[in-house]
Amino acid sequence: MERVTIDDIRAAAERIRPHVVRTPLLAARWGDAERPLWVKPESLQPIGAFKMRGAFNAVGTVRGSTSDVVAYSSGNHAQAVAYAAAAFGLRAHIVMPRETPNIKVQATRDLGARVVLSEAGQRETVAAEVLADTGGVMIPPFDHPDVIAGQGTAGLEIAEDLPSVRTVLIPVSGGGLASGVGTAIRALCPQARIFGVEPELAGDTAESLRAGRRVDWSIEDRNRTIADGLRSQPSELTFAHLQRVLDGVITVTEDEIRSAVREYAYRGRLVAEPSGAVALAGYRQGGTGDGDTAVILSGGNIEPSTLRQILTEAAPT
Amino acid sequence: MERVTIDDIRAAAERIRPHVVRTPLLAARWGDAERPLWVKPESLQPIGAFKMRGAFNAVGTVRGSTSDVVAYSSGNHAQAVAYAAAAFGLRAHIVMPRETPNIKVQATRDLGARVVLSEAGQRETVAAEVLADTGGVMIPPFDHPDVIAGQGTAGLEIAEDLPSVRTVLIPVSGGGLASGVGTAIRALCPQARIFGVEPELAGDTAESLRAGRRVDWSIEDRNRTIADGLRSQPSELTFAHLQRVLDGVITVTEDEIRSAVREYAYRGRLVAEPSGAVALAGYRQGGTGDGDTAVILSGGNIEPSTLRQILTEAAPT
Repeated sequence: MERVTIDDIRAAAERIRPHVVRTPLLAARWGDAERPLWVKPESLQPIGAFKMRGAFNAVGTVRGSTSDVVAYSSGNHAQAVAYAAAAFGLRAHIVMPRETPNIKVQATRDLGARVVLSEAGQRETVAAEVLADTGGVMIPPFDHPDVIAGQGTAGLEIAEDLPSVRTVLIPVSGGGLASGVGTAIRALCPQARIFGVEPELAGDTAESLRAGRRVDWSIEDRNRTIADGLRSQPSELTFAHLQRVLDGVITVTEDEIRSAVREYAYRGRLVAEPSGAVALAGYRQGGTGDGDTAVILSGGNIEPSTLRQILTEAAPT
Repeated sequence: MERVTIDDIRAAAERIRPHVVRTPLLAARWGDAERPLWVKPESLQPIGAFKMRGAFNAVGTVRGSTSDVVAYSSGNHAQAVAYAAAAFGLRAHIVMPRETPNIKVQATRDLGARVVLSEAGQRETVAAEVLADTGGVMIPPFDHPDVIAGQGTAGLEIAEDLPSVRTVLIPVSGGGLASGVGTAIRALCPQARIFGVEPELAGDTAESLRAGRRVDWSIEDRNRTIADGLRSQPSELTFAHLQRVLDGVITVTEDEIRSAVREYAYRGRLVAEPSGAVALAGYRQGGTGDGDTAVILSGGNIEPSTLRQILTEAAPT
């Protein structure tokens, strides 16, 4: 299996530059003195999450050879593909489970996409039909080299802004972001330690890396975490990257995730969704060593009621 | 009286570049279709406010001729001057009223500044004594060409990122930010309309511009607004700039300000202090015309309890 290279990531950066926010790496004065904290706020992308990067790279790569792209997702990936397709003048067909909240269906339609609702367990069948009908190309959420290379551009930017970084913390779920960012940092900042961070309640990647093979957790187990963007598991492709580029995976508790959401709002002046805050939660455990530490705030799409609840449930941290 | 020029602002940009965050101009998809909304999040500066820009330019200009700088402020300007002085290896002496909350005193000390507490009404006398004792230089919060030029760099960046901007909305209090940004936009984007925005309860600048002269509002009146960073009044210098560069001043109600804080959190994924949110409140009034509209989110320093209160007091907007 061929892994994504730093050259792939550099090419992705050129491709997506006109479309994606070059997020600043923010010096967070509220970090610890001996390990200065830097935040990469991907929540400031137009759809509120890093998924823009991979979607724009993958859709940008296939345009010219197709007029239709297809994705199945009820979350940030759906909107990212819809957004990228509209920017490149392609049609997007997004397969969503019938139980998807209407607000997310409408948000995807507002971006110009056609939404196809599927019954439980039927999304792959439905997506295959849409592919056959349209002659389009599937854009997967993480299991694709162009998606991994696109997500890696966030790591390229960290290396540009802070070449001497000592530690990088990245949320892990399907592993696209951690694979791409890890590849970029490994290539450009050989001194850096690179950690994935995931919820303890969806800790399949930590267990898999220890076991040296992918260990499957049931979706019922993974669904327990509030971090609804971190309930996927790595594919064969992303797992091969993670084995190569990560120094380890840290697991964080639900309370630690909620505390990190509060810390972002009260100290960092940023709204993070629970999935987006896990890297900061990992930093707060304190076990990743001294020196400049960069954390990726991967997304900010949180329901107002959830944000209010988390901000009011405890004293500021 | 000499006004600040675009060349002064360009020189300021060079001077402060290594020290200040080059904030992105964010395309806010949640704006209105016929007048796309762009947000300049100065809340992401290290001290959480645009004041960094003016302080770094003014302190950077006097270094070499002095080893001490003096400011009186209990707010963002105090921390900005302390931060800039530390970066340039100068001593900062900050005069604060004795009733300043201890958290703000400590935050300023943490930046390496000496804090001198003054009794009510004595701050100018105390500052004069500190100046005489140290042979230092005063860095005022807005009434100085170097401070205005520094704040103007935010406008330079808007012009670089969106040269075709049709409308720019800027919070107004002492007028340093609006003077600088207005000067930059007027020079580089002659097609743009430029509006100041201030709370109705501290609407001295709107009244002054209508009257063609500075009209004084009592501090008791101005203190009524929740926007505690917008309770100052323009100086002769900044008022001369505002008369020249603004197309008008919009006043916003307290409810409109609170609603804008919610909109930033729930839609923009950004934490704004009330003073920082007034430009968005002005945009929501809808009277500034069609086309690309840039608003400056000038600061994000809000007490956690105030943020919780504003987020919970109404349905999301």
